[in-house]
Amino acid sequence: MKLKIEKGELQKKVALASSAISQKVSMPILTKMVIVAENDEISLHGTDLSMGVVASVDGEVLEGGRIAVESKVFTDVVKKMPEGTLTVKTDEDGNVVVSNGKVRLKLSCADAENYPYMEFHDMETVALVKECELKNALKSVLFSLATDASDKKMTGAHLVIQDKDLTLTCLDGHRIAIFKLAMEQPVAQMIDCIVPGLFLGKLQSMLSTKEEPVAISIGNTHIQFKINGAVFTSRLIEGSYYNVGQMIAVDAKIRMRINKTDFLDAVDRASLFVNEGDNKPVILDITDTLRISIKAACGQMEEVVDAEKEGDEKPLRIGFNPRFILESVGKIDDEDISIEVSGPKTPCVIRGEEYLYLVLPVNIH
Amino acid sequence: MKLKIEKGELQKKVALASSAISQKVSMPILTKMVIVAENDEISLHGTDLSMGVVASVDGEVLEGGRIAVESKVFTDVVKKMPEGTLTVKTDEDGNVVVSNGKVRLKLSCADAENYPYMEFHDMETVALVKECELKNALKSVLFSLATDASDKKMTGAHLVIQDKDLTLTCLDGHRIAIFKLAMEQPVAQMIDCIVPGLFLGKLQSMLSTKEEPVAISIGNTHIQFKINGAVFTSRLIEGSYYNVGQMIAVDAKIRMRINKTDFLDAVDRASLFVNEGDNKPVILDITDTLRISIKAACGQMEEVVDAEKEGDEKPLRIGFNPRFILESVGKIDDEDISIEVSGPKTPCVIRGEEYLYLVLPVNIH
Repeated sequence: MKLKIEKGELQKKVALASSAISQKVSMPILTKMVIVAENDEISLHGTDLSMGVVASVDGEVLEGGRIAVESKVFTDVVKKMPEGTLTVKTDEDGNVVVSNGKVRLKLSCADAENYPYMEFHDMETVALVKECELKNALKSVLFSLATDASDKKMTGAHLVIQDKDLTLTCLDGHRIAIFKLAMEQPVAQMIDCIVPGLFLGKLQSMLSTKEEPVAISIGNTHIQFKINGAVFTSRLIEGSYYNVGQMIAVDAKIRMRINKTDFLDAVDRASLFVNEGDNKPVILDITDTLRISIKAACGQMEEVVDAEKEGDEKPLRIGFNPRFILESVGKIDDEDISIEVSGPKTPCVIRGEEYLYLVLPVNIH
Repeated sequence: MKLKIEKGELQKKVALASSAISQKVSMPILTKMVIVAENDEISLHGTDLSMGVVASVDGEVLEGGRIAVESKVFTDVVKKMPEGTLTVKTDEDGNVVVSNGKVRLKLSCADAENYPYMEFHDMETVALVKECELKNALKSVLFSLATDASDKKMTGAHLVIQDKDLTLTCLDGHRIAIFKLAMEQPVAQMIDCIVPGLFLGKLQSMLSTKEEPVAISIGNTHIQFKINGAVFTSRLIEGSYYNVGQMIAVDAKIRMRINKTDFLDAVDRASLFVNEGDNKPVILDITDTLRISIKAACGQMEEVVDAEKEGDEKPLRIGFNPRFILESVGKIDDEDISIEVSGPKTPCVIRGEEYLYLVLPVNIH
């Protein structure tokens, strides 16, 4: 194998492929990245068996081939090479040599025959979304899923695409996050699947804030996201998702409009006194005003935040885990937010045009 | 106690005082910060018994007193208060209340009677240096001291002030770093002491890059640095320092001038292949050119760097721990550096007008 590639291009694509590679794996081949140079095309492959990335690389193929290199070392080598055109080639001793004439870095490479390539060439694009919008949608919901749950469905995000709407839902038993994204083109048929949260988290970090189109394809067992130069593939989680519609159909007794920053800052100050082992709730006292307070062993806080209130005039006291409020409201871009509550034991709903956050209250002792 | 202080001022001074406070201490009082309001002056005290900081705070004393608060919680509380004037006062239940009219944060406080105040009012200023220059001098040498050595002197920096020269020296058995700083005013008598590296590291991080004067005072057992609004005090390490003059009096056989960035980048690339358990040296082959290479289990690297050479014409091969080279040369601001070597077992010296770095070579197998 002998290739000529610009350093910047190679570094970018190595980062994409290595995002699917984990260093904590039982099979040694899985810590490796595969370089494929065939039919004048270069691609980099990484997988952890559950997800995979194939990144296309702009470059010149002087001699084709397939080799596997240690992903971590190769990433570092490429990063530390000087700018300019690099030659990547194999030598007779079973090494791959990265050089630019002056600098020569050599590392051992392995056979790529038995690599578990994750490629699906027969999947067809079913939906197109903008890269920046998909990134924002993922950011808005992924924090709400359970990273470690007995029910595997809770570790994934529910993806529904119907007409021109793409909806993502995550929940973890204490809260729900929903984000709706409008697409330019409607889809031919409805899509309903559960995508692993770990994969979506990596996809989110790899997406840019550009308006480039992302093509989504879905098969029976896998989903694919094609972005400029790279294909991200993941297994789907089996089963049908929870009936969230039922949970969020709350007819709220009280509605408040609050300045988002004032509310966030107040809850953030309350969270100062939340310690491990002393998980006191932040208390919202809703009368004509909104009073936010917390009483913990290490300190107390109270603060009144301006709020426009509608509905029931009876005073209401309700307690929350401040982290759930901070994580949800922190994702909202709007200047003001609308909070719906009904009683001390019914969920609080914060909803806008694109998002809906539901947080369960905690008992106040 | 009742005080009025601007949030920004309080936050800045709390950060200074808390820099001397460690959370890993056996005496509970040492995790606390003391607020002293006496004679219309406010100050914050922090100490770990070996070092101490007293920070003066601009503010209004409505009612004097002395109290001790948990440093970590108080720091967080001040940081999260809104901008503007804060009232800090004690209440009848033994709490300190931080408020701004709208927000009230309350935390328990303790008696400050038995606090081990570290104050020396009788020490006189012996030298004046600029804040930015002291910061730079500390940065240039502190990385070379031993953080954990059987000989306590190695964990400190040797401070010598004579005439208009302030010299700092650190060494750890493998290398030496020396930095010389010119002061505007000469000192009346020579100063020679060993200052704990841990203290100097904290001092370095608290110094700004301004040209404000820092006043240095030295007693028999302690040293003090007075900066605008704060006094940093530390115990001295007993004993007399190593005779470094003898070690650096090397008459080099070969002298090379190299572009600093080229040299650093090459050694940095070589360090890619240094793993724990496979601590291969980076090898310098000095002929008419300078060839930098490394051969490790996980890979190899070689590179030729342009160098102007003077002295012995016999080829020389010498090996180093790349980390020692990177850490030393990385601190140098000059565009070109001068490297002096004599043989494969004699130290390499890199010297400029202000700095001198000595690194011992390692055996090449």
